[in-house]
Amino acid sequence: MTEPRNAVYAQSGGVTAVINATACGVIQECRAHSNLIKGVLAANNGIVGILKEELFDTSLETDADIEKLRSTPGGAFGSCRFKLKAPSTSDPIARRIFDVFKAHDVGYFFYNGGGDSQDTTNKISTLSKQFDYPLHCIGIPKTVDNDLANTDTCPGFGSVAKYVAISVQEAGLDVRSMCETSTKVFILEVMGRHAGWIAASSGLAGNRESDPPHIILFPEIEFQKSTFLSRVKECVARHKHCVVVASEGVRDSEGTFLSDSGQRDSFGHMQLGGVAQELARSVTRNLGFKVHYAISDYLQRSARHIASQTDVDQAYAVGTMAVTAALEGKTDQMVTIERLQDEPYRWEVSTTPIQNVANVERKLPRFYITQDGFGITASARRYLEPLVQGEAFPNYVSGLPLYVRLKNKFVARKLQNFDLDD
Amino acid sequence: MTEPRNAVYAQSGGVTAVINATACGVIQECRAHSNLIKGVLAANNGIVGILKEELFDTSLETDADIEKLRSTPGGAFGSCRFKLKAPSTSDPIARRIFDVFKAHDVGYFFYNGGGDSQDTTNKISTLSKQFDYPLHCIGIPKTVDNDLANTDTCPGFGSVAKYVAISVQEAGLDVRSMCETSTKVFILEVMGRHAGWIAASSGLAGNRESDPPHIILFPEIEFQKSTFLSRVKECVARHKHCVVVASEGVRDSEGTFLSDSGQRDSFGHMQLGGVAQELARSVTRNLGFKVHYAISDYLQRSARHIASQTDVDQAYAVGTMAVTAALEGKTDQMVTIERLQDEPYRWEVSTTPIQNVANVERKLPRFYITQDGFGITASARRYLEPLVQGEAFPNYVSGLPLYVRLKNKFVARKLQNFDLDD
Repeated sequence: MTEPRNAVYAQSGGVTAVINATACGVIQECRAHSNLIKGVLAANNGIVGILKEELFDTSLETDADIEKLRSTPGGAFGSCRFKLKAPSTSDPIARRIFDVFKAHDVGYFFYNGGGDSQDTTNKISTLSKQFDYPLHCIGIPKTVDNDLANTDTCPGFGSVAKYVAISVQEAGLDVRSMCETSTKVFILEVMGRHAGWIAASSGLAGNRESDPPHIILFPEIEFQKSTFLSRVKECVARHKHCVVVASEGVRDSEGTFLSDSGQRDSFGHMQLGGVAQELARSVTRNLGFKVHYAISDYLQRSARHIASQTDVDQAYAVGTMAVTAALEGKTDQMVTIERLQDEPYRWEVSTTPIQNVANVERKLPRFYITQDGFGITASARRYLEPLVQGEAFPNYVSGLPLYVRLKNKFVARKLQNFDLDD
Repeated sequence: MTEPRNAVYAQSGGVTAVINATACGVIQECRAHSNLIKGVLAANNGIVGILKEELFDTSLETDADIEKLRSTPGGAFGSCRFKLKAPSTSDPIARRIFDVFKAHDVGYFFYNGGGDSQDTTNKISTLSKQFDYPLHCIGIPKTVDNDLANTDTCPGFGSVAKYVAISVQEAGLDVRSMCETSTKVFILEVMGRHAGWIAASSGLAGNRESDPPHIILFPEIEFQKSTFLSRVKECVARHKHCVVVASEGVRDSEGTFLSDSGQRDSFGHMQLGGVAQELARSVTRNLGFKVHYAISDYLQRSARHIASQTDVDQAYAVGTMAVTAALEGKTDQMVTIERLQDEPYRWEVSTTPIQNVANVERKLPRFYITQDGFGITASARRYLEPLVQGEAFPNYVSGLPLYVRLKNKFVARKLQNFDLDD
């Protein structure tokens, strides 16, 4: 039997309401196999914490606090947006990562993130072979965008879907009450840069034609102003009000984002925002209706108070599965969720080679969008409905959720400082 | 004993997550006194429905559906923004109101709204004397702005307060996770045109100096850009991130709103919005930090899924109290909530003459705001904390809240059409 080695767990990319449930799954499963895995070192701010040799000693956290991660949003260990170069043993960043792994006897690497992060997992996996360093390298899915390939869904998405559907249902009742003498059009801007999964989930709010959302704008469908405006006009004529859900990634016929804030992240992706305001202006100017708009931004992806139980369960399960897979000797894999049945929803966790996932973006299929491009189909509903089932309420103290803040103490450093900006 | 007469109940102004709980209280209490009150006619869209003789026959709604109003947000009967002229028996609008009351044997008028709506209640009360029409005229408080005088709080506010505090707590954990390599500043824009009660409630999210919100911008405190920016800079230096909560009503030294969308409602109030974007631009340009912002807009005031139990209880109680007061022979009163004790919170409902309330705006007292103008004091916390206690979760079906939609059938009309635009 081999000597137990340490695991490194790290969170990457935009965080979610349930990424800590995954951390909870990883740490609890490692603790259950302490004969095989010595301990879990959690990197401070993803891969950046590895480079800086900032590794939290999770063994100092109580079982009770680790359990509380299951119901705490955000990234308990910090996350990052940081892109690795093409794998090369002469890259100082690559060498540093493996120096740190070696110094801390790391035999397991669990990277919890979306498409860009799985690219990182894939590169580290390749580097481990180039360096001939024995490492079980497992990617764990996470992204509210739900755009990872080869998995039924991505932990984080189900809770955003639930939040967005409920918000539309509630705000829809509000504007419906106000429309006679005041606001007639309400616009909710939601996340989803290139894929309209979140926008689509708002469609769960309505069952009847008169129910909101009356118009959904997807990044997959080219935005045509005149069609949009006549649709709003028609909707107000019929229902006296109109609820619009717009993905931040809505683009015109030129492929230009309806609103580009100009800021870019380290992956070169634009930081979007302002679509709702753009649409609101257009409706007011052209149709004269009073408009209100909301931008959920981080609220939608951190809303642990209304997380989907299904999502929390899956987030936890992909965490434990990562450990199981690694202990079975697997590497270069990402954990996946497989749908066995729609109703009642049955699913199981599995794994897929990481190359099948890294940098592949899964868009909303066309048949999930109605012919006119403004709604979701029965197929989409069948896919989405199971993902928002169940309410995983956190505990409350004095009217507010009880979210844990870990001790987060670093293990002693063993290496020299490394200048990230070199 | 007098013959039983009908009651008219109407919802007015911006709706809330709990205004229907008040409707539930009014209707249930009237049903319990059917020997004294024949039935409840609910006006379609507030006072406008009275003018149009659009009165819903609530007797057609089942007890079960009326009970479901307690957990349904928005205004089940529709609301309005509509201002009455100074009371005069020669005003055609005034005459019409009393023609409708007479035609439908209305002896009780319950008007459920905020400051502007209580002005309407007051005018109708005055008119009933001018017309010598026997009417028990009772105002019922409702406003997320919490700015009504002579009441400890206003139903609707506690739930927004809870929503905002939780949202800040959650989004704060999100940005804290991202700040190392990405977003450093997060701004949440909240409602509150002239009074900073909602902005203040966000302060409940944090107990430690390092907890968000780090900066609260109140309409009561003059906004100074340079002070604000240096405060943000200092906060990021200390905590690596900064969470700002900004009231939509933030004003500069000239008294100009930081952002004025230009739209005005029928009371001449500006429709505000865009403060968050304005602040975000300023932070990015001057400090270079990556910023995200959210605008809750209607989401905050319709979020029944996370309503405060205290708020729901109070909303219901002011409804029943309105009926009790009317049956005791009272008129020209608004129902109030009186605080008997902070902790444990004890309260009771009472009434106050309507003139004490109409058009009086209660601002956040200066001693609720810290010396530096950016936070809340212990006194504010003592006031606010009881209002967000308890979680009044609605029932869920298939992952979404079960909100009722009433039949809303009009009673037969007895009068000619009335042209509102005359």
